[in-house]
Amino acid sequence: MARTQALALDAADTLAPLRAQFALPEGEIYLDGNSLGVLPRAAAPRVAEVVSQEWGHGLIRSWNQAGWIDLPQRVGDQIARLIGAAPGEVVAADSTSINLYKVLHAALTANARDGRRVIVSERSNFPTDLYIAQSLAAQFGCTLELLEGEAIAQRLGSDVAVLMLTHVNYRSGAMHDMAALTAAAHRAGALALWDLCHSVGAVPVDLNGAGADFAIGCGYKYLNGGPGAPAFVWVHARHATAQQPLTGWMGHAHPFTFETGYQPAAGMARFLCGTPPVVALAALECGVQTLLAAEPLGGMAALRAKSLALTQLFIEQTRALPLTLVTPEAPAQRGSQVALACPADIDGYAVMQALIARGVIGDFRAGAGGEPHLLRFGFTPLYTRFVDAFDAAHLLADTLHSRVWQEPRFTHKAAVT
Amino acid sequence: MARTQALALDAADTLAPLRAQFALPEGEIYLDGNSLGVLPRAAAPRVAEVVSQEWGHGLIRSWNQAGWIDLPQRVGDQIARLIGAAPGEVVAADSTSINLYKVLHAALTANARDGRRVIVSERSNFPTDLYIAQSLAAQFGCTLELLEGEAIAQRLGSDVAVLMLTHVNYRSGAMHDMAALTAAAHRAGALALWDLCHSVGAVPVDLNGAGADFAIGCGYKYLNGGPGAPAFVWVHARHATAQQPLTGWMGHAHPFTFETGYQPAAGMARFLCGTPPVVALAALECGVQTLLAAEPLGGMAALRAKSLALTQLFIEQTRALPLTLVTPEAPAQRGSQVALACPADIDGYAVMQALIARGVIGDFRAGAGGEPHLLRFGFTPLYTRFVDAFDAAHLLADTLHSRVWQEPRFTHKAAVT
Repeated sequence: MARTQALALDAADTLAPLRAQFALPEGEIYLDGNSLGVLPRAAAPRVAEVVSQEWGHGLIRSWNQAGWIDLPQRVGDQIARLIGAAPGEVVAADSTSINLYKVLHAALTANARDGRRVIVSERSNFPTDLYIAQSLAAQFGCTLELLEGEAIAQRLGSDVAVLMLTHVNYRSGAMHDMAALTAAAHRAGALALWDLCHSVGAVPVDLNGAGADFAIGCGYKYLNGGPGAPAFVWVHARHATAQQPLTGWMGHAHPFTFETGYQPAAGMARFLCGTPPVVALAALECGVQTLLAAEPLGGMAALRAKSLALTQLFIEQTRALPLTLVTPEAPAQRGSQVALACPADIDGYAVMQALIARGVIGDFRAGAGGEPHLLRFGFTPLYTRFVDAFDAAHLLADTLHSRVWQEPRFTHKAAVT
Repeated sequence: MARTQALALDAADTLAPLRAQFALPEGEIYLDGNSLGVLPRAAAPRVAEVVSQEWGHGLIRSWNQAGWIDLPQRVGDQIARLIGAAPGEVVAADSTSINLYKVLHAALTANARDGRRVIVSERSNFPTDLYIAQSLAAQFGCTLELLEGEAIAQRLGSDVAVLMLTHVNYRSGAMHDMAALTAAAHRAGALALWDLCHSVGAVPVDLNGAGADFAIGCGYKYLNGGPGAPAFVWVHARHATAQQPLTGWMGHAHPFTFETGYQPAAGMARFLCGTPPVVALAALECGVQTLLAAEPLGGMAALRAKSLALTQLFIEQTRALPLTLVTPEAPAQRGSQVALACPADIDGYAVMQALIARGVIGDFRAGAGGEPHLLRFGFTPLYTRFVDAFDAAHLLADTLHSRVWQEPRFTHKAAVT
């Protein structure tokens, strides 16, 4: 493939106009939107309006007059359109970890009992999910069993209370079959809880179509909601009366009557806890709207087609390198990122530092417990161009071949996130 | 007292220059800083810098280069200076309700056992505290006992695990004696947990001096951190190994090694959970710094002296009105707000609406369970002037005497927060 072919793909890309929604760093190819999404152009003026006008001038009146009090539901309803959920089924609030605590607690309350005290998850799941599950397993007298690959579905016996998985793996980019695994969990009498952190806004998700039970996800990756943006939580309508333990006043049926006793709100408001983070929710709303802007152009299906084409191009252009592709090549098993493992004689940290110095921003994830060290590249079809994928692959190749990464300025380990 | 005397007090006020830190609404007297603090002038440019520069240009690099990863501790250390805590003892994160869940769970884990299964609190405590306590009481097989006044201290027997109180009452503005009640709790073998929502930044607080066990508080009231600002949590050094249940990755000893098993961080980082809300923490930092700016002028002690003078002036100027003072007159028992109860023939909601129409912004809190309906007025010595307190009192008097509040435009009940 020649670079001109990549440019031709961009010229023919009907989604190309969506890129203008973003304030992108000049002279850089940003392939880390799976870690922190870029800044929507609308976010800076919107945040300024919330701060200076709604807070500064409206003050306490803005809870009603500017609609602050409805932000968790308003933003949630927009996220719902990206994940196969109905209006009223999603609220934006708190962090991913806290929302996971809410729904896993609710799932265990509903389904953990004598003879059914196992939580099944994936060993390579994002650690915060495992940490929260460990805390709740101890509280409920349950066992957390961590498996990989086919062993996960095979483990779904009558003693399993909850199957808790992340839809797209944060390291490998491998994607689970949500519908099949949810059905398998249900056949075993277990509930299915999905973490959508690396799939919301990245791949089509159909929670109601899959019949999933609970889901949570992140606002600051593919949703472009800003650093530490609020997360979201979804609950299937069949669990409308499920109760979560973080019973703050915003989850009360009548928060402003200041009653002494807790009475959960009807609907998803019961999954709220404290006062909504207004400024952060306003930024998140701008991010979510960058994805909804794709709806007239084919929505998540069109974004998915471009995402697969981008990752396929990058996979093909890096195939000859002395790195091992960890991300599945089968499109149905691939999220919107590509992970390349480094052999023992290549310092992946230094390679990424050298690549960043050349303007390609991916990230490095050290392997723990025998896992390989990875170079991760996130592809975000809202703003990543085919020529970006092409150039990034060739700059990576040149970084490896030139051995520039062996210079001390790149091999020196600073604190990394 | 004549208005000129109030103006003279302002002219002699050494704290008066602090008012210039704020973007105050023109033509209004804002007495609702106990619900939502005003906008610090520094917040709008700082938030814009975080959004456009640190997020927009720095992107993922800003976690290290802009110090995002340290924000919970950095802001926490600044809050610590306002509440008698040492550096490293406070982190800013999550909401008040969620932080309460963390520390009450930790307190019950440490101290609830057979024969000691009572949580004592105040019936008129802010409801979210009671709701969280109800959730945890059920989980730990404990009983939540709600009392008022002297009965609280009298109840502290050998069966009490935790005394959980809000330092300054959100309705009445009455302030507990933190040191005395903490000591009484300890004599009974109970732990003392304090909610500082209405005292941090409003009155001097000395957590270590009082020997308290746990504390939490709000960022968006007297700290001026913005709507839904992150809250904070403090734990006494003697509980350094206490564990909380919201075991997200930011509380891990080594979050970026992505280990499978949870290992709590040394120190207060273990009270963190998810990814820090960067934009909101940046705004909160600006708010906290408006209080630290008082340090060269006498700090919280000087602010407290002015606060008491402001509330005393307002109490005296409203004494002849057909309203009942609910806030204690004894300075040691008074926070930084004044609450006036309405008799049955005065519609407090309508009075407040009419008063707001005349430019005095306080708020109305309906009474639940036989409590009186209240007009609440918060006095924030950083920006409230003596003439504001004087004018507010006389505009309230005129609103009542003129009976303008009886007009339908004021008596009509809209949704209120």
